[in-house]
Amino acid sequence: MGSYVPPIRDMQFVLHEVLDVQSTFKSMPAHADIDADTINAVIEEAGKFASEVLFPLNQSGDLEGCKWHDTVVTTPKGYKEAYAQYVAAGWPSLSCDPEYGGQGLPLSLNNSLYELLNSANLAWTMYPGLSHGAYEAVHAHGTDALKAAYLPKLASGEWTGTMCLTEPHCGTDLGLLRTKAEPQADGGYAISGTKIFISSGEHDMAENILHLVLARLPGAPEGTKGISLFIVPKFIPDAAGNIGARNPISCGSLEHKMGIHSNSTCVMNLDGAIGWMVGEPNKGLQAMFVMMNAARLGVGMQGLGLTEISYQNARNYAKDRLQMRSLSGAKFPEKAADPIIVHPDVRRMLLTQRAYAEGARMFASWIALEIDKELSHPDETVRKDAADNVALLTPIVKAFITDNAFECTNHGVQVYGGHGFIAEWGMEQYVRDARITQIYEGTNGVQALDLLGRKILGDMGAKMKKFGNIIRTFVEENGVDAKMQEFVNPLGDIAQRVEKLTMELGMKAMGNPDEVGAASVPYQRVVGHMVFSYFWARMAKVALEKESTDDFYKAKLATARFYFAKLLPETAGYILQARAGNATLQGMQDDWF
Amino acid sequence: MGSYVPPIRDMQFVLHEVLDVQSTFKSMPAHADIDADTINAVIEEAGKFASEVLFPLNQSGDLEGCKWHDTVVTTPKGYKEAYAQYVAAGWPSLSCDPEYGGQGLPLSLNNSLYELLNSANLAWTMYPGLSHGAYEAVHAHGTDALKAAYLPKLASGEWTGTMCLTEPHCGTDLGLLRTKAEPQADGGYAISGTKIFISSGEHDMAENILHLVLARLPGAPEGTKGISLFIVPKFIPDAAGNIGARNPISCGSLEHKMGIHSNSTCVMNLDGAIGWMVGEPNKGLQAMFVMMNAARLGVGMQGLGLTEISYQNARNYAKDRLQMRSLSGAKFPEKAADPIIVHPDVRRMLLTQRAYAEGARMFASWIALEIDKELSHPDETVRKDAADNVALLTPIVKAFITDNAFECTNHGVQVYGGHGFIAEWGMEQYVRDARITQIYEGTNGVQALDLLGRKILGDMGAKMKKFGNIIRTFVEENGVDAKMQEFVNPLGDIAQRVEKLTMELGMKAMGNPDEVGAASVPYQRVVGHMVFSYFWARMAKVALEKESTDDFYKAKLATARFYFAKLLPETAGYILQARAGNATLQGMQDDWF
Repeated sequence: MGSYVPPIRDMQFVLHEVLDVQSTFKSMPAHADIDADTINAVIEEAGKFASEVLFPLNQSGDLEGCKWHDTVVTTPKGYKEAYAQYVAAGWPSLSCDPEYGGQGLPLSLNNSLYELLNSANLAWTMYPGLSHGAYEAVHAHGTDALKAAYLPKLASGEWTGTMCLTEPHCGTDLGLLRTKAEPQADGGYAISGTKIFISSGEHDMAENILHLVLARLPGAPEGTKGISLFIVPKFIPDAAGNIGARNPISCGSLEHKMGIHSNSTCVMNLDGAIGWMVGEPNKGLQAMFVMMNAARLGVGMQGLGLTEISYQNARNYAKDRLQMRSLSGAKFPEKAADPIIVHPDVRRMLLTQRAYAEGARMFASWIALEIDKELSHPDETVRKDAADNVALLTPIVKAFITDNAFECTNHGVQVYGGHGFIAEWGMEQYVRDARITQIYEGTNGVQALDLLGRKILGDMGAKMKKFGNIIRTFVEENGVDAKMQEFVNPLGDIAQRVEKLTMELGMKAMGNPDEVGAASVPYQRVVGHMVFSYFWARMAKVALEKESTDDFYKAKLATARFYFAKLLPETAGYILQARAGNATLQGMQDDWF
Repeated sequence: MGSYVPPIRDMQFVLHEVLDVQSTFKSMPAHADIDADTINAVIEEAGKFASEVLFPLNQSGDLEGCKWHDTVVTTPKGYKEAYAQYVAAGWPSLSCDPEYGGQGLPLSLNNSLYELLNSANLAWTMYPGLSHGAYEAVHAHGTDALKAAYLPKLASGEWTGTMCLTEPHCGTDLGLLRTKAEPQADGGYAISGTKIFISSGEHDMAENILHLVLARLPGAPEGTKGISLFIVPKFIPDAAGNIGARNPISCGSLEHKMGIHSNSTCVMNLDGAIGWMVGEPNKGLQAMFVMMNAARLGVGMQGLGLTEISYQNARNYAKDRLQMRSLSGAKFPEKAADPIIVHPDVRRMLLTQRAYAEGARMFASWIALEIDKELSHPDETVRKDAADNVALLTPIVKAFITDNAFECTNHGVQVYGGHGFIAEWGMEQYVRDARITQIYEGTNGVQALDLLGRKILGDMGAKMKKFGNIIRTFVEENGVDAKMQEFVNPLGDIAQRVEKLTMELGMKAMGNPDEVGAASVPYQRVVGHMVFSYFWARMAKVALEKESTDDFYKAKLATARFYFAKLLPETAGYILQARAGNATLQGMQDDWF
């Protein structure tokens, strides 16, 4: 049930009309020749693949799930074939390095691709999605030999990749991990241990799987400073680069989960599996963070994808389902009842979904472009500024967008009423799939600590001030425009509140570091709204200029006005909660709980 | 996995120490002889049954689900036997009329029983839970013959009951329903139509099932004024009252749902099934509302039950799971890491669960006592006041408690991190089970319209003023106590804000009725917090008096302080959202969505 129409027009609005990505690409030698037609062709073709090939497998895949038998994992019907199509079309190589067979397109285009894939089938998309993270880690930290052996296979999609971090007794706290790596005479390592929650850890979609595994060398320091990163292939490539001996890394069982049923979440047993070190000894965590940051942006895109698909279906249902009359008098007297879209609270839920989807698309596209600048811009200052923005705002991409996605997919269920709870209609799957996005790749609580404790207070607010200046400049440039004041005034207001709140929390944290943890989660939502206010104001500016030309822009303005009137005000509560401090959290003794 | 310990001490605190229910019972002839020992024995025995018999079936029942084959429904392993034990122990008759075999205990005790059952196994509890609603409808509106034929069987639990309202094209809007009832020569009716979403509509736990069915008589007026209520037994009782001929009402299929897997959600086909009218022709909806109101209180108790069980398990896990160090320095340096309960944000989630569970228990116990007064108090003024309070606050019981339950069961998952998403640990089931409580028996959006549109603006705020006076009296009586000011001041403040907000919305609604729907959902949360503030202040008062005697009271005070510091402030955002009005909801034209 349900349907999916790729939001190509909305993506084009963001990429071309607001961000003007082409101009930015022109400033980077690596991407200077990318024109609007290329960009449009990529998202249109990706939209077709997502809606025509992946979307029809989403519900059947959820129902069927993955099957495990004696270390072998079978994915649902059609998954393998869809992956073969994906590989044949060259999608895995989109933003990979041409030196290793990639197409060398900007990461921001890959990001747009992933919105589409995630809307259509999140669990399927995790198979190629994790490969890309593995590609980036090896690309950034691998030796030339490792790069030559593995990157072309990852870029082509012939082989897929995983991240093997978590163990039964440690998830957030990787310093506790126990998996051991013994050096071998040939320069390799024999790795033994148990990893859990390994997404796409075993499957039948590709001939080989490359596991990026965190483990400890003999005598390594305790904690996070004694962890190294290894690449451990399921089949060890032979001298010709083809798959060779089966490595003793295998899937012991699959987890039964609330959602993402069709992605294999594996317990992986390593019993002297042979691996090669990526990066330097004991510095595996830093190397892994290349993957982690990409993965966090990726999780944000999952949140966006689910918000969009839930919105589309809730909107269609709300226009179709007849139930009760409008409180202000029948709107469709010729029908047995009015379609439920007439009811203000139904509109509130739909507009919430829409405003969060469009805000997330705008913000995530901007940050993906910042990553492109960080990676490819010739000017060092531009690279540094972009890197700071990316570091500062990655927790917002990951946590704010996914928290919104959970709220929005639940609105989708609520719009459907009782039918929303029934599997057949497809709406409850989006809730179940969205739930994990608030947890994995660092829980949203961990993101909030990263944001306030490390990214903001950690550099005495330097990165935050820099991003604040972007907002201030926008406010100053547009505050003189009477038509922009309805957007610029609340933006300026929330930016000031954030500044004040950040100062207050910084002072308190100097007295007691627990004040950071006591405020971080509501604080994160306040900053998220500041970011969304900025991007909604930017979208409104473009829409105002073209308002008379097309209803598309009128709808954009209506959504912007809804955002500022109805969503931004939740910050009033969160600011109070952030300011309420640590005292009442500690007033309860542990043994009273 | 997981565990459940009935919160007997907390229930006793509410019933005896805060509400002093025994005094109220003494004022009612029907209940004058109930002493504290009886009350304690009931909740202790109920707690044993819930934790020892029902809880062990909760997870296995979810996994197994109900099975359908050719109209026959089989419940999961152990369900039938548990129900037989429940009946043998006499639980169904607890608050039924002694004239029909009931024990005649107050409804408030039945309410406490249901908290315990719902914590242990919500989906199982829906089998007896709906029977009680059917009992009440027949008791209130049935003829003497119907009462004699059916009430003893419902009171004993030998037979169970259902509510058959929803049809494929109508849920909220019952005025659209099409099921037809043709009068028969013998005074019965032949009823034909299709009902959906019928909880416990078919099962193997009792020998007969009594369906309360809404249908239209020939020539009945259109809309809600042409609906009559009928009792339609699965097996028609013979003259001796034993089960006789199979009536053509049968289960066509089961729905596959997000949660409550082990409760059978049935499509019921009626093909000339014989029924008897309950109440008067065309006044079926009023008769059904007896069941609906009881059911809404019942759904609130489901929310409480899930909040409590999720809290208990999250707390246990947070004390046990070692991960990272406290930001303010290691709290358990002898361990490999600190238990996660040291982290302020984990405490915030646990205290949120606890404050909402204890607040809900307090509020729901109070309203159940108000229902007892409404039903059994000799003084007409007391009955009228109680009825007004119940009418006013039923939407808050239903919607506020279940919205909190969804938030809290999600906190439970989040505290467990990745393990929370894995079915084995049991935490995600509570989320899936909680989700339906926000939808059925009138969505929480419908509750909000009922609260603001009907219950508050419908009588020009009369009922609201009456409840406001209860708060004002408490504030005046306790405002002079220096120790109570930290609770009384925010209570007085939120009460004033609600008064002002209600006036403003009332004025706006006179101009445009859609302003009600535009404000109702955030308004409902604000009123919910006013109610919880009042009851937390009452609990704090008792706890302050006994603080020095037992850590139990210190914990109660710590939770109260957390509630006022960290949860009540969310109203600041909701008040702004409620005031933001209808304009931005209508600014978006239907065809722009």
